[in-house]
Amino acid sequence: MAQNYKLVLSFDGTDFHGWQRQPNRRTVQGVVEDSLAKIAQKKIHVIGAGRTDAGVHAQGQVAHFRANLQIKEEELLRALNAILPDEARVISVEKVHPDFHARKMALSKTYQYRIFNSPSISPFLIRYVYHWSSPLQLEWMEKAALLFVREADFSGFSSNRFLQPVRKVQKSQIKKNGPVIIYTIEANGFLRYMVRTIVGTLLEIGKGKMAPERIEEIFKKKNRFLAGPTAPAKGLCLMKVNY
Amino acid sequence: MAQNYKLVLSFDGTDFHGWQRQPNRRTVQGVVEDSLAKIAQKKIHVIGAGRTDAGVHAQGQVAHFRANLQIKEEELLRALNAILPDEARVISVEKVHPDFHARKMALSKTYQYRIFNSPSISPFLIRYVYHWSSPLQLEWMEKAALLFVREADFSGFSSNRFLQPVRKVQKSQIKKNGPVIIYTIEANGFLRYMVRTIVGTLLEIGKGKMAPERIEEIFKKKNRFLAGPTAPAKGLCLMKVNY
Repeated sequence: MAQNYKLVLSFDGTDFHGWQRQPNRRTVQGVVEDSLAKIAQKKIHVIGAGRTDAGVHAQGQVAHFRANLQIKEEELLRALNAILPDEARVISVEKVHPDFHARKMALSKTYQYRIFNSPSISPFLIRYVYHWSSPLQLEWMEKAALLFVREADFSGFSSNRFLQPVRKVQKSQIKKNGPVIIYTIEANGFLRYMVRTIVGTLLEIGKGKMAPERIEEIFKKKNRFLAGPTAPAKGLCLMKVNY
Repeated sequence: MAQNYKLVLSFDGTDFHGWQRQPNRRTVQGVVEDSLAKIAQKKIHVIGAGRTDAGVHAQGQVAHFRANLQIKEEELLRALNAILPDEARVISVEKVHPDFHARKMALSKTYQYRIFNSPSISPFLIRYVYHWSSPLQLEWMEKAALLFVREADFSGFSSNRFLQPVRKVQKSQIKKNGPVIIYTIEANGFLRYMVRTIVGTLLEIGKGKMAPERIEEIFKKKNRFLAGPTAPAKGLCLMKVNY
């Protein structure tokens, strides 16, 4: 039986059409599979812990694949990074138990969203943050963020409809570091655009355009149109997959 | 007489063909002039303190232009940043004396070159540093860097020939910050590829492939082929223009 490998990946999502392989589009799964194919001299299917959207970044995406390779883990790490484009880096390669599955065995995932709240911004940061130049009421956002810690139907914070829309959010908090407002959320799973819709809602609250009470209403009515607009992809980063 | 304006600009040089306007190429001077033309409703010529090469970044490029504009400095700053692409930001706009000239009045310029010296690198840094994964002898590089502090003919560290190749380097030093080796150089002027050739030479010394004594030899013989290869543009950043 083929060896099972676990990869931890970091990527700048700006120039990728998301994680999932698509014909004629540059995706992270696509470039990783293509790089592995060059090393293994055959097609290898890579399974990611989750599908990040176009423009979303990752510090710690996890993936697995099965293959019989005649090289050590460190060599595989180096070979992959030599073939991969600069914007996608393999952080670690590990041989794992045959049963390890990057998606099915993930207990939770941690995402961060960065808002750069200052009149001006450095061009070196602008790919990785959402720039909002007007003042925001941080205290309201901090309190509102805590309201998302619950096990509930999150349909009101997603653009799609799901058969199983219940997710358990363990952590949801706002912290400020200089001009950067960092929103951290950890959950056992995420609906489509869930983090970006929550952030869009927190931004409306920070601007004073929406009362924090609205959050309860959205959870009750499960109506996406009551929530804030979907925040841009570029501020979002998959930080960690927890097993 | 038209008002004279001083601009301080910061830009990510990755996707620009350098500073200087060129037909059918995206350059920083080009996008700044185009943005100003939209505001002034006429062509405005912008003069930069220096011409950065393709791929070189800037934290503090300085430029000036003359125009009669009916708006305040803060409004001009906001209008420019609204029109400019994200990768180029105006840091400040200032009305200055009619005689101010960004290039002619510059006393010196400070550049930094960043080498990321670690087996692996984050995809979020790779646009702004040169990644070198093998060990480097930092002490040798530190000592060698100091040898460039002098007023001398720098032809041996430039790819072009100049009628006036004498430059005065006031500062030339290597510092390490975690995995990042930062080379800082301040001079009253720079020959073409001068910083990148000096860095390429320091890298050869750090790798143990070149003796530090070679530097004196290059200054004496003024022979470019004795120096190290030109380091890649992406690690270089124009930090400051001093007046």
